Amino acid sequence: MIDVALFGAGRIGKIHAANLFAHQGVRLKYVVDTHAPSAAALAEQYGASVTDTDTALNDNSVGAVIIASSTDTHAELILRAAAAGKAIFCEKPVDLDLARARDCAAAVAAAKVPCLIGFQRRYDPTFAAVKARIDAGEIGSPEMLIVTSRDPGAPPVDYIKRSGGIFKDMLIHDFDICRWILADEVVSVHASASVLTDPAIADAGDADCTAVTLRTKSGRLCQINTTRRAAYGYDQRFEVQGSLGMLQAGNHRPTEVTAFGSKQVATDLPEHFFLERYQAAYAGEMAHFFRVITQGETPRTTVEDGVKALELADAATRSWQEGRVIAL
Amino acid sequence: MIDVALFGAGRIGKIHAANLFAHQGVRLKYVVDTHAPSAAALAEQYGASVTDTDTALNDNSVGAVIIASSTDTHAELILRAAAAGKAIFCEKPVDLDLARARDCAAAVAAAKVPCLIGFQRRYDPTFAAVKARIDAGEIGSPEMLIVTSRDPGAPPVDYIKRSGGIFKDMLIHDFDICRWILADEVVSVHASASVLTDPAIADAGDADCTAVTLRTKSGRLCQINTTRRAAYGYDQRFEVQGSLGMLQAGNHRPTEVTAFGSKQVATDLPEHFFLERYQAAYAGEMAHFFRVITQGETPRTTVEDGVKALELADAATRSWQEGRVIAL
Amino acid sequence: MIDVALFGAGRIGKIHAANLFAHQGVRLKYVVDTHAPSAAALAEQYGASVTDTDTALNDNSVGAVIIASSTDTHAELILRAAAAGKAIFCEKPVDLDLARARDCAAAVAAAKVPCLIGFQRRYDPTFAAVKARIDAGEIGSPEMLIVTSRDPGAPPVDYIKRSGGIFKDMLIHDFDICRWILADEVVSVHASASVLTDPAIADAGDADCTAVTLRTKSGRLCQINTTRRAAYGYDQRFEVQGSLGMLQAGNHRPTEVTAFGSKQVATDLPEHFFLERYQAAYAGEMAHFFRVITQGETPRTTVEDGVKALELADAATRSWQEGRVIAL
Amino acid sequence: MIDVALFGAGRIGKIHAANLFAHQGVRLKYVVDTHAPSAAALAEQYGASVTDTDTALNDNSVGAVIIASSTDTHAELILRAAAAGKAIFCEKPVDLDLARARDCAAAVAAAKVPCLIGFQRRYDPTFAAVKARIDAGEIGSPEMLIVTSRDPGAPPVDYIKRSGGIFKDMLIHDFDICRWILADEVVSVHASASVLTDPAIADAGDADCTAVTLRTKSGRLCQINTTRRAAYGYDQRFEVQGSLGMLQAGNHRPTEVTAFGSKQVATDLPEHFFLERYQAAYAGEMAHFFRVITQGETPRTTVEDGVKALELADAATRSWQEGRVIAL
Repeated sequence: MIDVALFGAGRIGKIHAANLFAHQGVRLKYVVDTHAPSAAALAEQYGASVTDTDTALNDNSVGAVIIASSTDTHAELILRAAAAGKAIFCEKPVDLDLARARDCAAAVAAAKVPCLIGFQRRYDPTFAAVKARIDAGEIGSPEMLIVTSRDPGAPPVDYIKRSGGIFKDMLIHDFDICRWILADEVVSVHASASVLTDPAIADAGDADCTAVTLRTKSGRLCQINTTRRAAYGYDQRFEVQGSLGMLQAGNHRPTEVTAFGSKQVATDLPEHFFLERYQAAYAGEMAHFFRVITQGETPRTTVEDGVKALELADAATRSWQEGRVIAL
Repeated sequence: MIDVALFGAGRIGKIHAANLFAHQGVRLKYVVDTHAPSAAALAEQYGASVTDTDTALNDNSVGAVIIASSTDTHAELILRAAAAGKAIFCEKPVDLDLARARDCAAAVAAAKVPCLIGFQRRYDPTFAAVKARIDAGEIGSPEMLIVTSRDPGAPPVDYIKRSGGIFKDMLIHDFDICRWILADEVVSVHASASVLTDPAIADAGDADCTAVTLRTKSGRLCQINTTRRAAYGYDQRFEVQGSLGMLQAGNHRPTEVTAFGSKQVATDLPEHFFLERYQAAYAGEMAHFFRVITQGETPRTTVEDGVKALELADAATRSWQEGRVIAL
Repeated sequence: MIDVALFGAGRIGKIHAANLFAHQGVRLKYVVDTHAPSAAALAEQYGASVTDTDTALNDNSVGAVIIASSTDTHAELILRAAAAGKAIFCEKPVDLDLARARDCAAAVAAAKVPCLIGFQRRYDPTFAAVKARIDAGEIGSPEMLIVTSRDPGAPPVDYIKRSGGIFKDMLIHDFDICRWILADEVVSVHASASVLTDPAIADAGDADCTAVTLRTKSGRLCQINTTRRAAYGYDQRFEVQGSLGMLQAGNHRPTEVTAFGSKQVATDLPEHFFLERYQAAYAGEMAHFFRVITQGETPRTTVEDGVKALELADAATRSWQEGRVIAL
Repeated sequence: MIDVALFGAGRIGKIHAANLFAHQGVRLKYVVDTHAPSAAALAEQYGASVTDTDTALNDNSVGAVIIASSTDTHAELILRAAAAGKAIFCEKPVDLDLARARDCAAAVAAAKVPCLIGFQRRYDPTFAAVKARIDAGEIGSPEMLIVTSRDPGAPPVDYIKRSGGIFKDMLIHDFDICRWILADEVVSVHASASVLTDPAIADAGDADCTAVTLRTKSGRLCQINTTRRAAYGYDQRFEVQGSLGMLQAGNHRPTEVTAFGSKQVATDLPEHFFLERYQAAYAGEMAHFFRVITQGETPRTTVEDGVKALELADAATRSWQEGRVIAL
């Protein structure tokens, strides 16, 4: 039986708790959250106790921690959990500061504990199938990757101010997709960005639409386009052009209804947002985390992946701000 | 807390047990199965006890029964559970014999217990969305219904011999779809059928491909086409032609990958078979069953629906055997 | 140079004239139409002369006739053109009366002239590709055929009264599809039909929605569903279920635009009606007709096909009127 | 009657000749080509004469010229035809040299003759429908444009050497799409490019895969991805993200057949190459050209559009070669 401490009882913490619950041999022991009622409600639902960070990390029976608290707490919790020898699952990003993220990677390496970063998209059935088919050689050598990543609406400007900017907050997932799918390291980054949906985002020093080009060591090309506000919802697609063919990862839809009306033929919008779109992915990453712990499965999204994605986000931010190509 | 007795620890019994487990306020108390190891394994997994029918039905703490045992046990279990005042969920068909199915309906009515029949397709997100949109008037008055219902492969001939024939075994779901979607009663049935996939099915006195036409009281027309063996898998679609438009319910697929190769553009086959295709539907019908018990929700698939579908299956069988139209 | 006489300067006559014009080695010599201004306009456009039937058929330089005049003139023109030794292209149906249609077939056979019937769907790129792929063995042995054939709106009731009824007027194309695709002769017909779109159609003694089942010699099954009025337009699809797979022939659309709005994802309606949908098919059948004449290509849609489709239309009409299965 | 002189009897010249032929009131009078047999064959087919440039341009009865000869002849023919007061249709590009292209624009302006450049994609039914729907306000203000433009295979290296490079040869169409769809002028260009399909292309000093980002005056972003060799054929799509929705222009396919096999569900590849894909567009641009001449319709693709697209191609080439962002 693996006892687990969960940090963060918010939206994503609840999802992890529910997915934990479905696993035999795993038990939610502690919930830690600065917001007491949230912690209490979640703890009660799954028969866990509310406690504080020290108690949770000092309890030797706790084998694994799930860090789903706010971004500014990630690095410290990783460092402390690694020091305490716990297996770690941490939501992205490792930290907004690259140096600090690298410290985390070093600490994890020194402690020899598994540390998975929550790049859940790698566990999405559609995305994972594309990756597996590329690995099986279906499209030969990957040449170009086109990533479409659009949110249905921007978060509050207060959040944006603390988010590290669109490249660290939103595109960090897409940078991870690029490294994962192309299986190659990026050597240069160009980012262009605009504020087209809400001037308040400009006032906050951020952008809401971006167009990024990454070039890898082998000359592979990746283009990412994002917006904070797509009127039609959450749009998460990518396509990989290879020497022998092309693979597209499309959106998922709530139903497979097609309506033929007097003006047009209509289908559902994509799944509303990340909670719906990546429901299977969240379950999949948690299952993977426990297989890493119990069966020694190789971690699929490591803290190094978290650091590398942050490096790209940093470079993209600079490219945008300085209007030039950044070499890595 | 509702204590539940489950009859049948086979494939579908396991699905119901897992869906039960996800409900707060519900507990699997007993598992009854003639195959002791299956009963034991399932009971252990969910903390239930293995017992026999008498014990399960005589235990006053048991509020609900789930009948997922073989078809020939359904009627007796419904009759006994109704007499014992239990809420009943029973897999289709009620019975292969229409008179006996009607006895069940009468017993359930007399006992005033809820009795849901497992026409799970009504709980499928896509099918239910079509129904809701028709009810909301989107396509005006429904005029025609075209149902495509194809299995990836035939069951063993031994099963077929005991199955009551393709109309009672397989099309009974489609007859229920017809009554549900057209919201109208059938007045005549014509069925044509052939053996085209396996001569052993003919030897067993059954057919493997059917073409059925139903006509309702209001003159609405329904066509059903089925086969026991579609090379490409499980195909479950229908479309409703109405005065103002048309709605199609399409297949679900495991992933949304599209592959562009040198010869063609390819997507996934439909979900493999009913366990995959109707995963959400099985969860949905169990959730509904407990809302019927605890919140008084109106049952969506009643024992009367089970009887009516059986009447149509009987009529279709006769139409096929006698080569003529059967009026109801 | 082949000189051609065209009978009928209406909608379909104009299409044939335009398609003729694109062929080198073919010249429109005469246009014959009881409506003089139509004949004059068409003749002028393509440098032809207006004349009468006798002149056209007696002119030895005329090698081919195209009969696109009203249905009641078809049989006589076929008989006279055959007697005059002309190659014949005639719009469907050969005649509304089966005996008279058979007379035409006999006369054509005796005269040994090519006589093609305008079942243009066989020349549609999508439908023809399905047929070619079946013939190449892609889906093994065809087992079931499902035909969807819906018009965007009914013709005037006056036309319906003279049309021979929905089975001869509209489904005759679908009966031809059945024979062509299944490559098997029909042994029994069941037709159900209703008036659901316009009571005036009932007053005219006809129906507007039909559900037909055909059974072939080898036990293959075909279902056809039609309506005179689909709110979303012209719907022409079929699918063929075979022992090794399934082929669907889908609708064509004016453009490949997909619109993602705030409520739904929308694409174009199907091509508006037969003139748009079968534009390529009309060109294809005319090209075929001249290859039959000049290169001895085997006729793809013969007068015998016209007779057979009419036999099925007759049987379907009787099945509907008498409420029973008709054996052929 | 407009008499037309056609320069160039190659592949694209033949298409224009055939489209000309379908227009009443237009006559192909002259064919000019350095390859005598090609000129003779085309002239004979449409009843024209073979002649030389001087004769064609000095003939006062010639009202319009179509320039479909090799790129290095375009500018001189435009200059001479403008001087002779002819209406001009010229294939892209105006010239490979920007200064010379600007001279052509100036000459055309001075001569006040219509001069259309063959950006045929603007006449494609799908692309034109997207443009019309944007103009009608369907997606509000356009924010991002993603263009996918992939060829099925590279032309011979000899051609590539004289082509001006991939940006002038291939992306010039995409640059035109960007200006047309976003209706905004570009202020900066970033281009990355690689040789991934054939090292001989690198030897020729060119690239075969490109990733381009354009930024407009209003901050709109456009990404273009291209390859010289897509294993699955010719891929011509774009999508426009706007404030109120998104419009996608998809590929066209030869047929609407869907095949369900034992492994996958498959549809046709896109139309093979530009001759098939843009068949309707080529007819549309020729029809437009003659409406410009006879009805004074406003030219849709002017010589200025040709110059602007060339400016972008030049900037992209420099961006790639110098590895930096180019401001315009």
